[in-house]
Amino acid sequence: MAVNFSPPDPASLRPVAGVRLGITQAGIRKAGRKDLLVVEIAAGSRVAGVFTRNRYCAAPVTVCRERLADERPIRAIVVNTGIANAGTGELGIANAKACCSAAAEALGVDAGSILPFSTGVIMEHLPVDRVAAGIPAAVAALRADAWADAASAIMTTDTVPKACSRQVIIDGVTVTVTGIAKGAGMIHPNMATMLGFLATDAAVGRDTLQHMARWVADRSFNAVTVDGDTSTNDSFVLIATAKAGNPKIVGEGTAEFARLAECMLEVAHVLSQAIVRDGEGATKFITIEVEGGKTREECLRVGKAIAHSPLVKTAFFASDPNLGRILCAVGNAGIDDLDPAKVTLHLGGTLVAEKGGRAAAYGEEQGKAAMAPAEITVRVGLGRGEESATVWTCDFSYDYVKINADYRS
Amino acid sequence: MAVNFSPPDPASLRPVAGVRLGITQAGIRKAGRKDLLVVEIAAGSRVAGVFTRNRYCAAPVTVCRERLADERPIRAIVVNTGIANAGTGELGIANAKACCSAAAEALGVDAGSILPFSTGVIMEHLPVDRVAAGIPAAVAALRADAWADAASAIMTTDTVPKACSRQVIIDGVTVTVTGIAKGAGMIHPNMATMLGFLATDAAVGRDTLQHMARWVADRSFNAVTVDGDTSTNDSFVLIATAKAGNPKIVGEGTAEFARLAECMLEVAHVLSQAIVRDGEGATKFITIEVEGGKTREECLRVGKAIAHSPLVKTAFFASDPNLGRILCAVGNAGIDDLDPAKVTLHLGGTLVAEKGGRAAAYGEEQGKAAMAPAEITVRVGLGRGEESATVWTCDFSYDYVKINADYRS
Repeated sequence: MAVNFSPPDPASLRPVAGVRLGITQAGIRKAGRKDLLVVEIAAGSRVAGVFTRNRYCAAPVTVCRERLADERPIRAIVVNTGIANAGTGELGIANAKACCSAAAEALGVDAGSILPFSTGVIMEHLPVDRVAAGIPAAVAALRADAWADAASAIMTTDTVPKACSRQVIIDGVTVTVTGIAKGAGMIHPNMATMLGFLATDAAVGRDTLQHMARWVADRSFNAVTVDGDTSTNDSFVLIATAKAGNPKIVGEGTAEFARLAECMLEVAHVLSQAIVRDGEGATKFITIEVEGGKTREECLRVGKAIAHSPLVKTAFFASDPNLGRILCAVGNAGIDDLDPAKVTLHLGGTLVAEKGGRAAAYGEEQGKAAMAPAEITVRVGLGRGEESATVWTCDFSYDYVKINADYRS
Repeated sequence: MAVNFSPPDPASLRPVAGVRLGITQAGIRKAGRKDLLVVEIAAGSRVAGVFTRNRYCAAPVTVCRERLADERPIRAIVVNTGIANAGTGELGIANAKACCSAAAEALGVDAGSILPFSTGVIMEHLPVDRVAAGIPAAVAALRADAWADAASAIMTTDTVPKACSRQVIIDGVTVTVTGIAKGAGMIHPNMATMLGFLATDAAVGRDTLQHMARWVADRSFNAVTVDGDTSTNDSFVLIATAKAGNPKIVGEGTAEFARLAECMLEVAHVLSQAIVRDGEGATKFITIEVEGGKTREECLRVGKAIAHSPLVKTAFFASDPNLGRILCAVGNAGIDDLDPAKVTLHLGGTLVAEKGGRAAAYGEEQGKAAMAPAEITVRVGLGRGEESATVWTCDFSYDYVKINADYRS
């Protein structure tokens, strides 16, 4: 059960001109599951991506990086679930490319114009024959209004499909942004999404779109964490089809860039927070706001130290105001010259700690009340600067252990 | 239930001339618990310590650091459980010193010659009156052969008392090393012990003893992890009473230094590994050997990345050879120029991965067999140098969540 997140109404997901989606059951790891998605992208579109920093990155990530670096026109993406195609060496690269070739043939485009994505179990080889056999059915099913189906097809341990649409007017033209994402475990900044795809019909320059992808990811998918494990496959992709008719957005300082980026961030916030709300075993959704830092980076570091602490996360699960564990996590964030005497801790509206210890007015009953809701905001003031950052996470329950002890069986 | 670690036979714990230990029930947090330990140290002894790097370090840690930096003679240590006296601001410092004063009065020594230690719940104030009221009873109980009782008195969520003795002959003199430790959760390198005290009757110079404390800690308590949380209170203390009659050990390059340090390391290995074996909810004991690194530090980083991954730890709990999760953790260790094609992974004697992927001869059945035992060795070759390091950890079970969700209730 995700925390306050329901499957999106399919009617709320707006098609993006120039993008069609088709899914099928390819039987990649288990029979009877929708496990293959093909997204066709119109000629003339721009595609940008941000990928995992894990050194054991998956073969499809390597292939995506190469193809985006080559500035090739991208005409489709292929996504499979079940097997991650990570920790698969040279054969993994060949397999990822073979899947692309099968899709290219079915779509009548160049093999190098396909981006591959995989998610699932690590260190097993992709059954290329089954992927290739499934692709014609996925291509035959291509539709502009299949975003909800696509969100379902990329799920693994997710319990809820994650999709979202927004519109914004840019230079008098209504522009649409629609996105899907998947992920519930092995979720950690850099990238946290596992897989996220956002498409817009806006026209955006190539370098500008790449800059936008980084900007959006840093404020959304890279600021959520479930369990602190950075996946081998994390990928976040922006597609801009240029079908809306707006003047092309070029450069990062413009009002048009800001409007589109903010709209994309809105979609990315919904999707990335949905990943946390659907975090493996999650019963609570925690927003951690860190302010008063010297840099945004150190605020993020403090937020993640809190978000990664198993002791903090189990306390949230138990609704136990054992809030010293949060101070302990702040102290572990690696800021060598942090002065605990200047740190403040709020839980919701309640001041819990200041001057190096418990606030005079704080009582256990207030803590219990603040820990009870399914949505909790932790606010940490570092008292050393003007920067801030926000991190989103969930609690740590019996079910996290259960899900991850049983995942493959 | 600790993994292959039983309470030590009290008869196996050798007294250390110059050290006496006394315990009592002070009712610090709950009634009917042994929760206060006084260790009396003979005049002329040397004491050295290594402490947590957590910026929210506990008040007693601050007091210990100051007193050791002042090079005062140390005549006793006072340890309470139940309340950590961390996150307690200025009052916490005053309370820690007040406990020292009470002990100093009972022992007839200078208040500045007492080192205070606390472990328990964070952000609550120490009931100084109850500590002070308990001290005379602890002092009245001082005995040279109370090491087993002392190990029991410092337990919190520990299920087994941790104590160990060894002897070594130095310059023809038999020297004894006896130690106790406590810890089961909030366990992470820097320092991992929560609390560890080793005493020897050897004569050691002050700076030499401090160097020895760091050397031993880095190879034992700083190389174990249960949950990745560096506690606010972690402390490791060496006491050398100079009662054995050996020529004083001065300087780090000598054979005598090496002999005593190795003997201390043996005791510290037993104690620090006992903390992992008794890790909250632990059902398995995992040794992670990382070799072929450019530096010992990067080997430690890889070992800890594996040891901290909740996904790896839950797979060990399930005895599920989902070993791609280990590769994922290696990739997350932050070695930017790591070449996965050169990495090897062994589980016990089984080669699991090489050349960026699964080893050709590796099969799931071998993995299952290797994951079954209660003691498992993971060996990672980085293929980039001659350095190595070993890290010890445990698995992550339902009971970890249960213990930490219920801890305060």
